[in-house]
Amino acid sequence: MYNTLLLPDLRLMLIENDTRAMSELGEVLFPADTAELLAELAPEEAVTVLMQIRLERRVEIFVFLPLQFQIELVEKMDRKDLSRLLEEMAADDRVDLLERLDPGHVERLLPLIAQAERADIRKLLSYPDGSAGSIMTTEYASLPKNITVREAFERLRVQAPDRETIYYIYIIDNDRRLIGFVSMRRLILSKPDQELASIMQQDVISVRVDDDDEYVASLVHRYDFIAIPVVDAENRLVGIITHDDAADVMREKAEEDQHRLAAVEPLEDSYLTTPVLVLAQKRGVWLFFLLGAAVLTAWVLQYFEGGDDHSWIIMFLPLVLASGGNAGSQSAALVISALARDQGKLKSGGAFHVLFRELSLSSLLGGSVALISFLCAWLLTGNPWPAVIVSSTVLLVVVLAAMTGAALPIIIQSLDADPAYMSTPLIAAMVDVIGVIIYFNVARLVLGHYPV
Amino acid sequence: MYNTLLLPDLRLMLIENDTRAMSELGEVLFPADTAELLAELAPEEAVTVLMQIRLERRVEIFVFLPLQFQIELVEKMDRKDLSRLLEEMAADDRVDLLERLDPGHVERLLPLIAQAERADIRKLLSYPDGSAGSIMTTEYASLPKNITVREAFERLRVQAPDRETIYYIYIIDNDRRLIGFVSMRRLILSKPDQELASIMQQDVISVRVDDDDEYVASLVHRYDFIAIPVVDAENRLVGIITHDDAADVMREKAEEDQHRLAAVEPLEDSYLTTPVLVLAQKRGVWLFFLLGAAVLTAWVLQYFEGGDDHSWIIMFLPLVLASGGNAGSQSAALVISALARDQGKLKSGGAFHVLFRELSLSSLLGGSVALISFLCAWLLTGNPWPAVIVSSTVLLVVVLAAMTGAALPIIIQSLDADPAYMSTPLIAAMVDVIGVIIYFNVARLVLGHYPV
Repeated sequence: MYNTLLLPDLRLMLIENDTRAMSELGEVLFPADTAELLAELAPEEAVTVLMQIRLERRVEIFVFLPLQFQIELVEKMDRKDLSRLLEEMAADDRVDLLERLDPGHVERLLPLIAQAERADIRKLLSYPDGSAGSIMTTEYASLPKNITVREAFERLRVQAPDRETIYYIYIIDNDRRLIGFVSMRRLILSKPDQELASIMQQDVISVRVDDDDEYVASLVHRYDFIAIPVVDAENRLVGIITHDDAADVMREKAEEDQHRLAAVEPLEDSYLTTPVLVLAQKRGVWLFFLLGAAVLTAWVLQYFEGGDDHSWIIMFLPLVLASGGNAGSQSAALVISALARDQGKLKSGGAFHVLFRELSLSSLLGGSVALISFLCAWLLTGNPWPAVIVSSTVLLVVVLAAMTGAALPIIIQSLDADPAYMSTPLIAAMVDVIGVIIYFNVARLVLGHYPV
Repeated sequence: MYNTLLLPDLRLMLIENDTRAMSELGEVLFPADTAELLAELAPEEAVTVLMQIRLERRVEIFVFLPLQFQIELVEKMDRKDLSRLLEEMAADDRVDLLERLDPGHVERLLPLIAQAERADIRKLLSYPDGSAGSIMTTEYASLPKNITVREAFERLRVQAPDRETIYYIYIIDNDRRLIGFVSMRRLILSKPDQELASIMQQDVISVRVDDDDEYVASLVHRYDFIAIPVVDAENRLVGIITHDDAADVMREKAEEDQHRLAAVEPLEDSYLTTPVLVLAQKRGVWLFFLLGAAVLTAWVLQYFEGGDDHSWIIMFLPLVLASGGNAGSQSAALVISALARDQGKLKSGGAFHVLFRELSLSSLLGGSVALISFLCAWLLTGNPWPAVIVSSTVLLVVVLAAMTGAALPIIIQSLDADPAYMSTPLIAAMVDVIGVIIYFNVARLVLGHYPV
């Protein structure tokens, strides 16, 4: 938002080494906006500016920088500045960064960080990517059940400065087991000498530290939570996941799906910051696989091709294949998004319901597309028989492609894999092979009876 | 989660007309879970169960039902029950529902609703779909600046029960103009006799009531807000948009993109609840358009086809076209998601950066795919010249398709339209036409010099 306007000023500050102006800039702008501005600078320059800003604010700005840029900055910072920065960062942001650094580098950094934080870091680093543990933060507000609302407020005042949120308060017993939940709203509405035990909600929705992060995000979204507690196998509270981190997971998943659907392996960074060679690999793996499918089509095609000398057959080959591919892609995309919405659970009989819908829908659509193809083919060839062949093939291929596009994601999902692997190009490739076979067989059948 | 387990019990309660059990069920389960259970019943049955649950809880459950089902229930309820339900609903949920009802029906309902609520409904209904106004709620916490923290807590205690959130408190002047912001965390950390004016943050990020809802959602996500205030042209506070509603917008947008990318017009409801005829229309419009493109390919093909009698040319036609289509789809999907991430603003020179990346990337990928095509074509035809023609066409088509796939979304975005219109099937259709032209021209050129 600000970058186009303020970037020249910031560059001037750097040239004039106006440290006071840099420090003020950091205070005046919102952290997210300062971060956007800094991301436009070279890493050395961004470090220079950051170091002029007071530590607390510096950290707020730092965590809004793209992860890739954070890593570059870390390499330019001196170790002491870096350890102060890491100590001040929220537990989850810190782990996101450390996970991406070279492990040797991390080991050299850890001794510079306070003992308590260090244990926390090692713990959080141990959770596998894609688990609730890997996105949670350990900075939650918790209280015992046997204190009054008045005491709760006093304790929260102490906890408030370094907790991710104090609006959801988790009630734990002496073994840190999660036994209840109180919202700040509830606290405010309660009388000062009520005990927490009497106002807490006992039935708390929580997730396990090894639960899938997308499942966690869907729960947060489902219940409109500000945060969800994370417990270990003994129901001990180990962290929370806040609504903004859940939204990040949802957003990343949506982007991942979008890439998969276009036959690109999901990227870890944004498209613009991913190195070209990494992109080449993420795309190449699918391109080669799809090329294999295309070679199969070519191989099938050679068997049909020698025989007849009807040039119109070739003319309409791309049309037949494209119609099928398009219809199949639509079905796949719709079914995949329906599966994502329901977190993969189709209700009982859901699969049949979907296939029945696709059958009626694709007959309708295939019929109409076939009708128009009939007219176009007649017009372009001046002969009704090619039109009959093209249009009946289109109808068959559209129906078959739609059924395939709908069924495959459901099957893939039931095997516990990501249905988004059923990408548009993959569906199109399968339809190409089937389409060629149908097309030439229909042609043979019709021409056998009515030679043109 | 619960539905498979509890559904038989619930059906039994209905058969035995066990109203007490129904009422208890509504209290014991989380509202989102009761809603999931009710959505499995016939509308009449769901109404029967709902009416046994106390009003407040009933409303909490009702708003978790899918909108389409809410509409069906509304039609089965008697007008008095319905008006009580509507009065109790949060302003934004209520408007979501009323917007989808027949306008005549709404006009008959309004007289049954309390005067104050009625004005609020009319106001909210007047904001166009897709605007901040259409997703905001009017139930925000606001305070004047000249009261103390102690007084603030007292007033919030009164406001708390019917506000969407009391964790963000907006400070307004006598004309309701937004002049500041205080978080609940800040309030708790302040001394009881400090004035709000002295602790409030004056620089408040707000949106205009006519701002685009996706822009609003991106702001909430960018700053990790729990809510964002909505103001009118005179900076008067008119509502707030909470994080969960922003997440809904993001999720809907992601689904919309996913559908558009597969050439399906976005649906208003989920795939499973959208009537087949509506689906047919949303898909048909693109299928017919793409059929037009395929007819163009057929038309182009007839010009190339009469001349030579090389059956291998046809064999590899689908391969050439698919390779281009796949590479173009990948580029389009990646660029579209990069644009979505940056809310459509590519940094200065960003377009050239993207095109340059795609050029180097597609040369690399196109080269490798061409190499493998060369080997396959030689193997399948037993002749190196077809292999030369096929592989050089593949290289050209992949590079051209990738550049097209990357450039078109950027151009569409710069025209203020949704870049997701550049769907995989559309890119593939364009590549088909260009691919045929390139293929046959390369073949002519090569065969002119080296007749096979």
